Amino acid sequence: MQDRSEPAPSARLGEADALQVGEWGRLSRVVIEHVAPSIDGGRFMAKRVVGDVLALEADIYADGHDVIGAQLAARSPGGRWHDVAMQPLGNDRWRADVELTEIGAWTFTIEAWRDPFGTWLRDVAKKQAAGQAVDLELIEGLALAHQALRHLGSSHPNADALSSRLDEAYPASGQASTAQRLAVLQRPEVVNALAGVLRDSMARHTDIGVWVDRKRAAFSTWYELMPRSQSRIPGRHGTFDDVVARLPEIRDLGFDVLYLTPIHPIGRVNRKGRNNSLQAEEGAPGSPYAIGSAEGGHDAIHPELGGIEGFARLVQAARAHGMEIALDFAVQCAPDHPWLAQHPDWFERRPDGTIKFAENPPKKYEDIVNVAFYGPSFPEVWVALRDVVLFWIGQGVRIFRVDNPHTKPFPFWEWLIREVREAHPDVIFLSEAFTRPKVMHYLAKLGFTQSYSYFTWRNTKAELTDYIEELTSAPSRDVMRPNFFANTPDILPFFLQTGGRAAFQIRLFLAATLGTSYGIYSGFELCEATPVPGKEEYLNSEKYELKVWDWNRPGHIKEDVRRLNMLRQSSPALQSFANVTFYNAWNDHVLYFGKATPDKRDFLLFAVNLDPHTPQGAHFEVPLWEFDLPDDAKIQAEDLVTGQPFAWTGKVQHMWLDPKERPYMIWRLIAPSRAQ
Amino acid sequence: MQDRSEPAPSARLGEADALQVGEWGRLSRVVIEHVAPSIDGGRFMAKRVVGDVLALEADIYADGHDVIGAQLAARSPGGRWHDVAMQPLGNDRWRADVELTEIGAWTFTIEAWRDPFGTWLRDVAKKQAAGQAVDLELIEGLALAHQALRHLGSSHPNADALSSRLDEAYPASGQASTAQRLAVLQRPEVVNALAGVLRDSMARHTDIGVWVDRKRAAFSTWYELMPRSQSRIPGRHGTFDDVVARLPEIRDLGFDVLYLTPIHPIGRVNRKGRNNSLQAEEGAPGSPYAIGSAEGGHDAIHPELGGIEGFARLVQAARAHGMEIALDFAVQCAPDHPWLAQHPDWFERRPDGTIKFAENPPKKYEDIVNVAFYGPSFPEVWVALRDVVLFWIGQGVRIFRVDNPHTKPFPFWEWLIREVREAHPDVIFLSEAFTRPKVMHYLAKLGFTQSYSYFTWRNTKAELTDYIEELTSAPSRDVMRPNFFANTPDILPFFLQTGGRAAFQIRLFLAATLGTSYGIYSGFELCEATPVPGKEEYLNSEKYELKVWDWNRPGHIKEDVRRLNMLRQSSPALQSFANVTFYNAWNDHVLYFGKATPDKRDFLLFAVNLDPHTPQGAHFEVPLWEFDLPDDAKIQAEDLVTGQPFAWTGKVQHMWLDPKERPYMIWRLIAPSRAQ
Repeated sequence: MQDRSEPAPSARLGEADALQVGEWGRLSRVVIEHVAPSIDGGRFMAKRVVGDVLALEADIYADGHDVIGAQLAARSPGGRWHDVAMQPLGNDRWRADVELTEIGAWTFTIEAWRDPFGTWLRDVAKKQAAGQAVDLELIEGLALAHQALRHLGSSHPNADALSSRLDEAYPASGQASTAQRLAVLQRPEVVNALAGVLRDSMARHTDIGVWVDRKRAAFSTWYELMPRSQSRIPGRHGTFDDVVARLPEIRDLGFDVLYLTPIHPIGRVNRKGRNNSLQAEEGAPGSPYAIGSAEGGHDAIHPELGGIEGFARLVQAARAHGMEIALDFAVQCAPDHPWLAQHPDWFERRPDGTIKFAENPPKKYEDIVNVAFYGPSFPEVWVALRDVVLFWIGQGVRIFRVDNPHTKPFPFWEWLIREVREAHPDVIFLSEAFTRPKVMHYLAKLGFTQSYSYFTWRNTKAELTDYIEELTSAPSRDVMRPNFFANTPDILPFFLQTGGRAAFQIRLFLAATLGTSYGIYSGFELCEATPVPGKEEYLNSEKYELKVWDWNRPGHIKEDVRRLNMLRQSSPALQSFANVTFYNAWNDHVLYFGKATPDKRDFLLFAVNLDPHTPQGAHFEVPLWEFDLPDDAKIQAEDLVTGQPFAWTGKVQHMWLDPKERPYMIWRLIAPSRAQ
Repeated sequence: MQDRSEPAPSARLGEADALQVGEWGRLSRVVIEHVAPSIDGGRFMAKRVVGDVLALEADIYADGHDVIGAQLAARSPGGRWHDVAMQPLGNDRWRADVELTEIGAWTFTIEAWRDPFGTWLRDVAKKQAAGQAVDLELIEGLALAHQALRHLGSSHPNADALSSRLDEAYPASGQASTAQRLAVLQRPEVVNALAGVLRDSMARHTDIGVWVDRKRAAFSTWYELMPRSQSRIPGRHGTFDDVVARLPEIRDLGFDVLYLTPIHPIGRVNRKGRNNSLQAEEGAPGSPYAIGSAEGGHDAIHPELGGIEGFARLVQAARAHGMEIALDFAVQCAPDHPWLAQHPDWFERRPDGTIKFAENPPKKYEDIVNVAFYGPSFPEVWVALRDVVLFWIGQGVRIFRVDNPHTKPFPFWEWLIREVREAHPDVIFLSEAFTRPKVMHYLAKLGFTQSYSYFTWRNTKAELTDYIEELTSAPSRDVMRPNFFANTPDILPFFLQTGGRAAFQIRLFLAATLGTSYGIYSGFELCEATPVPGKEEYLNSEKYELKVWDWNRPGHIKEDVRRLNMLRQSSPALQSFANVTFYNAWNDHVLYFGKATPDKRDFLLFAVNLDPHTPQGAHFEVPLWEFDLPDDAKIQAEDLVTGQPFAWTGKVQHMWLDPKERPYMIWRLIAPSRAQ
């Protein structure tokens, strides 16, 4: 023991060792990790809707070979806790299923432990099977059982009965073999009552949050319109009552959310003219996004629309038709918004004392100014904006489409959404953020219920497949619910400009089948496609002028809209987002996919020709394997456009999609057991 | 404003609103997330070796359009902090490169902020380019510049010079256009000094830890032997001096770590006999894993090996040959280990007062007992075990192979490794845990430097490709460094039992080329393959008896060992783990892959026939595209086995691998610019 090149170790690391070690000794030997869903380690909540069964999973294991137990403690929004046993799935993955019965914030804690009595039960059985002596094991097991019994407490309803049970291991007669005594401990009622009672080395994983919305948060069909364009008489400003008159038609097309662009008084200062011109022509109505004038601000209604009573009639009528009104929440103000006079310190000023217009250099937005979120009077502006939302909630509105949230502070949105949901967990916020991917995703994490997405610009088979696969995979699918808008007042995609009527049918079909929430901006169903040349904007946009539309204009695609929306309502497979599977169709212009319920009772196939100009044929695979059928099997199907039943024999079939006729097909597969 | 269905909102949510909002107002608008490497949110450290350049990346962004700045604050093990600017990579991903110049624990903090002066500089340039008036912008910019200057402070070396510079915007003459005044603010020296000085809405991400090892932690070539089997005389117990005599041969084979199975006194109580029999025959030497006897325990040396002086000679001689000794750290004790008498409360007892043997029911290990890590005298055992490691460190040992760490408490290992590294950051711990995948991975996270892996049982092309791709991807590649042992005293894989000499060449080739650390247990080079029938165990294992080997036995593969180990030493491409690319060879028995340095100056191709019984031919792709060459190009190459230079013309070539000759090929590709 000579020749040490180092001093003696115990002297070296000091006397405080024991204390330090003591702290380490209190750490659990059980690991809980890779919890799913869990967003950024519990910083944010995953999203679900009421009625969903949440599958909460985690890796759970310990060193050594002891039996492990695990449970999930679930707290409902109402504050009730209940425990759900977790089950091992193999490879140290565990799961518990929780039915989400209420809307609001749910919180979960996973607990896992080493189970000494369970370990003893397992090991003694192995030793018995191997014919080994187990006399000492019997004594050890009885001690554990009694320890568990004490832990249950004498107040436990079965305490006396269990105690008597255990005494049977040593009957008064004294006559019992070790095996007979062990059998007492191995009885199902003893095992069920005592295994899992003793919990060593408990580990906990807290802060698992899930926000549960009402069902429309995840499945909704939006129709966007400008109320002032709903008049039937050229030159007359449309009113809420004009909108009421259109409700039966919109309802019959299958929409359930009617989204109105801003309905507030429109600024007169620097008002924009036709086609976004800086000089407004005489009588120009201005952009409804330039909010506020002498007539009022964000909690007022543009006088020509019909007043708050007219709005109440619209809310009421929509509800009567099974629809809901969504309002536009756009934070910016026109220069003559009342807030500028009432609260001059809510706005940023230039060195010359003027108020700073909105800008995105070199672009300028002279008809609007932004509030200063962190100005000298912070937090008044935050509270005022929240109160705007609460005001409209007071008018019966529960859905808000938020304009450009990515240009306002992240902390503001997180605060506002929490504040509003605290009292109104049924409110839905749609984030209109066509911005960078990570910003878009972060807004969803902050709490936005639904999100605009890049769907609007995904046109090719590869683009669509990649994007849908990204959106339907974790982490996206747990926090971001895309709303597939096919067009907006600001966006007339090039594909629609150049593809004719078939392009509208194609985009409608993709939005309505791949998106659980989707929307069209009115005019889409009429195939309105006249752009500002070279731009993705509408020529003579109704954002800047009064318009009157012929809602039955020749060439419209209302029959397609109605067909697809009715199918969405009747088919459970279309009401789930992540259940899409892309199947093989050997033509890069043909996108072919299926959506099905887990039990495959609702099994739909969709095919669409992405080329609006040219007919395309494609061989494709009927997914017989999904029903455990061989490649040469026959399967019953139904053409859901024509209603025609038929059968396919064999896996590889052929389709022909002519954009002049109809660029898409929809089939229902009928599971063999049901077809008989 | 009538018809409210809810009470007035401001009354509703109470008076405490302003305070609540105030807290939200202090949150940063800048997001730092998806930091890499970051192990479980900072719970564990990623691993690197000294000299590595750490690429630390994160998503960094804010709401709005302001310019963002970010930096990394790096703290070396010596405690010095320094800042490294982070650079945007696109799509809101940022990176900083840090050269890791010291071994030990490095910690990093990312800081990111909104940059008002930088934002102003960008926006004013856009407005100037668009020909807009920028008079007010000039005043705003000057105010920001002066604010930044004040923030730098008058003690800043350039404060006076910068102040004078700014004054030039308003020359005494009074003669200057707005553009000339702006140009003052846009001068490089002003921009460099003042942009980034003002930092709004600062966000911080702390707790990024990286453990930096010495280079051998990531690149090492292990030879395992039992010292007692190194005697040349049958029946005579080998000694450390016998091991010293073998050092030149082992060094010439290219090994740099010589790993000894336990060298401690071996228990006599319940000693195992030949082939693990319960009854030891007379004179049986026992298993070296049954540690401890009257002669001493974990800090003693088996008397017949030659004493502590002999061990010191071996450590010294190994060092002189450029090799390092690794010891086996096996926590269990023989029943006659001195600790049982000295510290009876370190061990768990049965109801009859006997000490509990180790077991994994129904298997029993009668010759060893385990310490009770959480027994009544906790934490004495922990400290004692740490002191065993420190004792051998005192004898010049810096590498420990830890036996079965997964059956001892996780917190114990984390504590022990931290304690030891606190004083000795150069110590390497190899985890011998052939256990479930998540447990194996967790031990690496706890701090083990290297890990045994499933390589030993991955034989087919698909198995090898999948497993290597898993190990070379995050998160595995950042924390777990596999050591590809081809065999061990406990494991003679079926592939080696049945594949003959070619099987040994194949497994050697895979281990030495795919593994940056790999090892063989002595006898492998002799193609020793006699199993206990039906088991993956050696017949007549030297674990239970004295053996003498002919180290030049006919049929050995020492030439292959030497060739591959020399190539590992000379080729930088073989000293990185994650730089493997699997290329196409159209034969499922042929695995074909490349390893290259980032500059492609060292570009190696490897091919091996995984079928030890049958010659295999395969067409394969020469990766011309890696050098931006067309498919019909000619490329210079070298056969690294024969040393023969040659050229390939065209992408698709053919190979023929005959296991009777040599089942593998190694080529070096020569980059075109160097070939000229």
